[in-house]
Amino acid sequence: MSRLVMKFGGTSMADLERIRRVAGLVAAEAANRRVAVVVSAMAGKTNELVAWTDGAGEAAGNLGPSDEEYDAVVASGEQVTAGLLAMILRNLGVPARSWLGWQVPIFTDSAHGRARIDDIPAANLIGALDAGEVAVIAGFQGVTRGGRLATLGRGGSDTTAVAIAAALKAESCDIYTDVDGVYTADPRIEAKARRLAKVSYEEMLEMASLGAKVLHSRSVEMAMAHGVLVRVLSSFVEPGGAPGPGTIVCDEEEILEKRIVSGVAFSRDEAKISLFGLPDHPGVSSEIFGRLADANVNVDMIVQSHARSEGAANMEFTVGRRDAARAVEIVKSAQSAIGFEEVAVDEEVAKVSVIGVGMRSHAGVAKTMFGALAEKGVNIQVISTSEIKISVLIDAAYTELAVRALHAAYGLDQP
Amino acid sequence: MSRLVMKFGGTSMADLERIRRVAGLVAAEAANRRVAVVVSAMAGKTNELVAWTDGAGEAAGNLGPSDEEYDAVVASGEQVTAGLLAMILRNLGVPARSWLGWQVPIFTDSAHGRARIDDIPAANLIGALDAGEVAVIAGFQGVTRGGRLATLGRGGSDTTAVAIAAALKAESCDIYTDVDGVYTADPRIEAKARRLAKVSYEEMLEMASLGAKVLHSRSVEMAMAHGVLVRVLSSFVEPGGAPGPGTIVCDEEEILEKRIVSGVAFSRDEAKISLFGLPDHPGVSSEIFGRLADANVNVDMIVQSHARSEGAANMEFTVGRRDAARAVEIVKSAQSAIGFEEVAVDEEVAKVSVIGVGMRSHAGVAKTMFGALAEKGVNIQVISTSEIKISVLIDAAYTELAVRALHAAYGLDQP
Repeated sequence: MSRLVMKFGGTSMADLERIRRVAGLVAAEAANRRVAVVVSAMAGKTNELVAWTDGAGEAAGNLGPSDEEYDAVVASGEQVTAGLLAMILRNLGVPARSWLGWQVPIFTDSAHGRARIDDIPAANLIGALDAGEVAVIAGFQGVTRGGRLATLGRGGSDTTAVAIAAALKAESCDIYTDVDGVYTADPRIEAKARRLAKVSYEEMLEMASLGAKVLHSRSVEMAMAHGVLVRVLSSFVEPGGAPGPGTIVCDEEEILEKRIVSGVAFSRDEAKISLFGLPDHPGVSSEIFGRLADANVNVDMIVQSHARSEGAANMEFTVGRRDAARAVEIVKSAQSAIGFEEVAVDEEVAKVSVIGVGMRSHAGVAKTMFGALAEKGVNIQVISTSEIKISVLIDAAYTELAVRALHAAYGLDQP
Repeated sequence: MSRLVMKFGGTSMADLERIRRVAGLVAAEAANRRVAVVVSAMAGKTNELVAWTDGAGEAAGNLGPSDEEYDAVVASGEQVTAGLLAMILRNLGVPARSWLGWQVPIFTDSAHGRARIDDIPAANLIGALDAGEVAVIAGFQGVTRGGRLATLGRGGSDTTAVAIAAALKAESCDIYTDVDGVYTADPRIEAKARRLAKVSYEEMLEMASLGAKVLHSRSVEMAMAHGVLVRVLSSFVEPGGAPGPGTIVCDEEEILEKRIVSGVAFSRDEAKISLFGLPDHPGVSSEIFGRLADANVNVDMIVQSHARSEGAANMEFTVGRRDAARAVEIVKSAQSAIGFEEVAVDEEVAKVSVIGVGMRSHAGVAKTMFGALAEKGVNIQVISTSEIKISVLIDAAYTELAVRALHAAYGLDQP
């Protein structure tokens, strides 16, 4: 009998009523297949727990909040929903049990708060599935080799689901969410956005990294590495109803209809840091970005330009908005070593991106993008590109305008 | 260096502000001793979790709520407070880590929802304490040999604390609560109630069983069995202040001042079940109470009387109020086997008790009790006695009146 992984996020698990609806979807699948379900905490719960850890950590600040204790606290949210869903399934006559991260076990490294799964010995899980029991697995959490709880960071339940699907060699990893698939743009911003029937791992990865909230990029990475077929589906179906076709995330080769651009994504979680008056000699960049990397601050876009004054340069780079203050602190504390004159932060920026595997073989994609933005008077602050995406940093106030302009420019509103 | 166990209940851990106060008390002790702290969930949290499991279980009712999944859900509350307290301690510069039940491990039997601790291999814990780290242990929870979470039932954190104190051979198990010791009666009802400096295990056990909410009876039983010295203290001290002397729970021999009666306790958690028209032949009682015992319904007071009709008897017994409906159902389902005519339930009853080791060697204690109640016009429905206590079941409306009358009758308001 084939194996299926179903994953339900926080909004699908927000209260008992919704968990009952989830149980109905699970029961329907469990009639024909071996089912492992991965669940998130009730919507809002993780934030509540994180707020408590912030409060607990603020007293002195000798420690960042992302330590073992943060994880012990935050991992409790999924424990609750896993137990509740298992109870409801059993009450529906569907044999089921909850599996906490340490029970599976889902082994992780010890990077608490953003741990990576490194092994899932799945024999016990497979035994339970083969005995006809639905496995309800707490997402977002694992256990270190030292026996401490570790959480995987935001979006970790998607990663858990894909990792479990890989470990179980599941036929599909169905990610149930509050949208019914992956769209050419956020439908709340562009009403003409269309659902994609299929999207490649590479495109999904870029979309996820670039702000599309449907799937977490780490989960897509893992799906791509292990060839896990992922489906994005809506959990908001009529009681007794079946979910729609959703969007399949798969290998590029399996997608027949070729597009140049598949979607437009945006992110407002960026902050731009500018360093002025840098000495123009080798080693400055490594001095700056080495220190940021050591502090686990991810730097995204980088641009360097020469200032008008002789032998001095300016550098602009973006980091996650929540890392901005820390990044500035790190840079400032090394001001003499780096040798810059001034640092500035701008949080009123957004990154808008166009993504498509078709870019590899088509010229003119960038030209269309810059033209469409120029036409609307949107100033481009920083540009970064990869094989299958072009991103620009713009004034945050222009975000929606830019998304709609690009959506139209690439004909994404056309069926 | 001596070892100390400190236990903090839900009201002491109700929010971050109070947890910080707890951290202050812990830090003060940790300066001179090896400290293990046992914590409850935030006040109200366990009830919230239990309500969810009730909601999850109500759909069909194939299962009682007290199964493995109930425990997985409910155990999450202590996980949160243990992590938060460890974080705050570390931020105060006190090395600390949280220990969940399965991490210690605290092994229990598999009576989920009311599990009993059967072993605590404490080597890891002792290692951490000897390394100078405060151990913050999640109360109320353990793990079965099969690796499932198990909770100990209400008051379970007290039991965890005493069990940990026994495993660590701790000098004292300090139970911090919202009162500053054990009183001769509930001070909310009898303003003249006095704090006892010392109380024997036996008396404390009776008080706990009889409705005094200060300590759970299972924890006292365990303390008595292992000779753990318990102190009841208030956690509500001024920031930076020290707790008062509290009440020491210890062996009878260590108490110099002898009293006949040490306290008056009451409980409103009772229900009286009456069976009328029972056949008057051997085996009836075992028929009734055997069935209740099989269903894990604890029966407390029992009285049997002959009815006026020839060869028929009536039986009255009390059960916990939350078990009343179930007890009636069990009895009714066996009506033909037992052979009674009618069953009635009265939930408007209270059990009032006087407790004191001095009763063993003093006559007239019962006479004083019955006289004092008669004088106030309180009708006694059922009586039960042990070596060191006398309990009466009365109309719940007379509870406070009876407590005050007995408190005065035994001179408990006199220093």
